[in-house]
Amino acid sequence: MRAAVLRHGAMTVVDDVPEPVPGPGQVLVEVKACGICGSDLQFAAHGPEMVAIAETIGGDAPFAKLAVDLSRDVYMGHEFCAQVLEYGPGTDGPKRGTIVTSMPALLSDSGIEPLVYSNTASCGFGERMLLAAPLLLPVPNGVAPTAAAVTEPVAVGVHSVSKAALRPGESALVLGCGGVGLAIIAVLRARGVESIVAADPSPLRRTIAISMGAHHAVDPAVRSPFDLVTPDVTFEAAGAPGVLDEAMCRAPSGSRILIAGVCMQADTLHMIYGASKELVMTFANGYSPEEFGEALRLIADGAIDVTPMVTAVVDLGEIGQSFVDLTDPGRQCKVLVAP
Amino acid sequence: MRAAVLRHGAMTVVDDVPEPVPGPGQVLVEVKACGICGSDLQFAAHGPEMVAIAETIGGDAPFAKLAVDLSRDVYMGHEFCAQVLEYGPGTDGPKRGTIVTSMPALLSDSGIEPLVYSNTASCGFGERMLLAAPLLLPVPNGVAPTAAAVTEPVAVGVHSVSKAALRPGESALVLGCGGVGLAIIAVLRARGVESIVAADPSPLRRTIAISMGAHHAVDPAVRSPFDLVTPDVTFEAAGAPGVLDEAMCRAPSGSRILIAGVCMQADTLHMIYGASKELVMTFANGYSPEEFGEALRLIADGAIDVTPMVTAVVDLGEIGQSFVDLTDPGRQCKVLVAP
Repeated sequence: MRAAVLRHGAMTVVDDVPEPVPGPGQVLVEVKACGICGSDLQFAAHGPEMVAIAETIGGDAPFAKLAVDLSRDVYMGHEFCAQVLEYGPGTDGPKRGTIVTSMPALLSDSGIEPLVYSNTASCGFGERMLLAAPLLLPVPNGVAPTAAAVTEPVAVGVHSVSKAALRPGESALVLGCGGVGLAIIAVLRARGVESIVAADPSPLRRTIAISMGAHHAVDPAVRSPFDLVTPDVTFEAAGAPGVLDEAMCRAPSGSRILIAGVCMQADTLHMIYGASKELVMTFANGYSPEEFGEALRLIADGAIDVTPMVTAVVDLGEIGQSFVDLTDPGRQCKVLVAP
Repeated sequence: MRAAVLRHGAMTVVDDVPEPVPGPGQVLVEVKACGICGSDLQFAAHGPEMVAIAETIGGDAPFAKLAVDLSRDVYMGHEFCAQVLEYGPGTDGPKRGTIVTSMPALLSDSGIEPLVYSNTASCGFGERMLLAAPLLLPVPNGVAPTAAAVTEPVAVGVHSVSKAALRPGESALVLGCGGVGLAIIAVLRARGVESIVAADPSPLRRTIAISMGAHHAVDPAVRSPFDLVTPDVTFEAAGAPGVLDEAMCRAPSGSRILIAGVCMQADTLHMIYGASKELVMTFANGYSPEEFGEALRLIADGAIDVTPMVTAVVDLGEIGQSFVDLTDPGRQCKVLVAP
C-alpha cells in the first residue's frame, strides 16, 4: 500500500510500504481523512531535538516514550477517521464498513504503541493502518469523515478547558488560533463561556476563530489582547517562543495560564512576572479516553462545528506541499489528507 | 537618628537621617532586630532592573508598586521586631515598651507605603521607624526579639506551604535553603509532612535544614535530589537561574512545583518539560495578615524554632560587611541587624 513517510526530516516521500496485517485485538482500517497537526510540522522540523528532549526527560512521562529512530522512515498522522475493513484473529467490533475514529494508540502483546510517530506502525498518512479494536469509536451517521477526523484536536481542547476549570462568569483569552487554539475556543463556547477573546497574527485564523466561537479576535501585532480583556484564564496555544513571557507580563494578578501550546525550543522567561502576580501555570497535554469520546459527541451533536477550521482536503501526494504551506499560517489552518 | 541607607547601589552607608514623627494611626518604635532578606541583596545588586521590571508589569500587581528613586537614598529592612515608643495623635495600641512585630506596611492618608524599599519611610535598618498601629502584633513574653524578627520569612513559608496544599502522605522537596527555603521546611515539618528533602550546595545551610525539620539534605552538585525522592510538590526556593528548568526536567509526571524563589534575571526554560508531564506551577509571593499572625504563633508556641537559621546578629555599622558576607552562602544564613 502507499503511505507518506518522514525520511531524512522531510515529509515529501510517498512510498510503497508493507501492508499491515491485524493481530489479535487489532483491526485493519482504511483511512478516510487524517489531519496535519502542528506537532507533525514541529517533528518534521525539529525531530532530533524532540527525540533528545524525550530522552532527557525519561521516567514515566508520556512524551518520554518517543522512541523513534530518525535514520529510518517515520510514519505519522494521528488525527484520523477511517473505515473498518477486517478484524484480527478472534477479534470483533463494529461491523465492516463502519466509519470509526480512535485515540491514536495501538495495543499489542508488546504494550501500547502510540500512533503518532512510529518506525513500525503505519499511521494516518497512509492508505490503511491498524487500530486497537477496544478503542474504536463508531462515528454517528451523518457526521462526515472530514469532521470526525478533527475529533483528536477537539479532544485536546476538551482536556485543556477541563484542566482550566473555569467558574461561571469567568473570561478566557486564547493566544494562538491553530488547531489547538481553535479547539479550545470551540469547547469554551460549547460550555457557555461568555467572554472569549482570541489572538492570532493571521487574518484567516482570526476569521475562523470568530466562526468557531470567539467573541472578539485581535491581531497581537497591532494591539495587545490584554488591552481588550482582563482574562481569568489565558490559554497559551501558540507554542512559539516569547508568547508565554508576554502573557506572564500582562496577565492580571492572581489569574491562571493554561499552557496548551508546546514550545519545543528553550524559551526565555521572566519568572518575576509570575511571582509578582502569583500566577498559576498549568500544563495540559493529551486527553483521557472519556475526553476523546466527549469530543466526538460534541462534533456529532452539532455543539461544535469544525468545518470552518478545515481549510483544505488534499491527496496523499500533496502532503509534502501541505507541510510547506502550513508553515505560513496565513494560507491554511487545518489541512486534511484523504489517502 | 542613625540608619543604614542604600546609596548608589551600595548598602554601606550609615548616616544621620530625619527622626520619624508618628502621624494619626501611626506608632514610633525602636527597632530591636531586623533580618537581611535575600531580596535585599538582590535589590542592592539589581535595583535598576527590579524597578524597570516593576514598571513593565504595571497594573495592580503588588510588585508593581516598587516606585523607588534609586538616585536618592533608599531605606530597607522589612523583617523586624521593635519596641513601642510613642503613638501619633489620637492613636492607641499596645502600651509603651511592648515588643511588637508587624507586616512591613505603613498606612497614611496617602495610602499604603510598603516598608521594604522606600525613599521616604525609614525601615528596619535604622534605629527607629514608624509602623501602622492597627497592624501591630505584640510578641508574647519569652520570645526573643531575634526570634520574633524572623516572623516575616516564616510568614512567607506559611503562605507558600498553604498554596502548595499538600494532602496527607504527600512528600516535599525544597530546592534552596536560604531564608525562604528554611521557613518552608520548618512549616512543612510543623504541619506534619513526613517526607521533606532539602537541597542546597552549602554544607552550613544543609545542616540548618536538618535542624529545622528536613528529613534528608543533599548537595545538588553531587547528587540530584530527584534521585532520592519522587516529590509530590517541589518548592523552588533558590531563585537562581537554571534551578527551575532542572526541576521541570526531573519532577515526576503530574506533580506540582511551587515557585517561592524569585529569580530576578531572565531564565532559560524548556516548557516542553512541563507539557510532557502536565506539571502545575504555582507562584507564591508574600502572605496575608492571617498568615503573618500564624507565623508569629508558630514561633511563640515553639512549633518552629528559628534559632538555627540565625547565624549572626550584627551592629548597624556592620551591615555593609554582612551584605558582602551573605553573597557567600557558605558563611552565613540569616543575619540580623540590631540597631
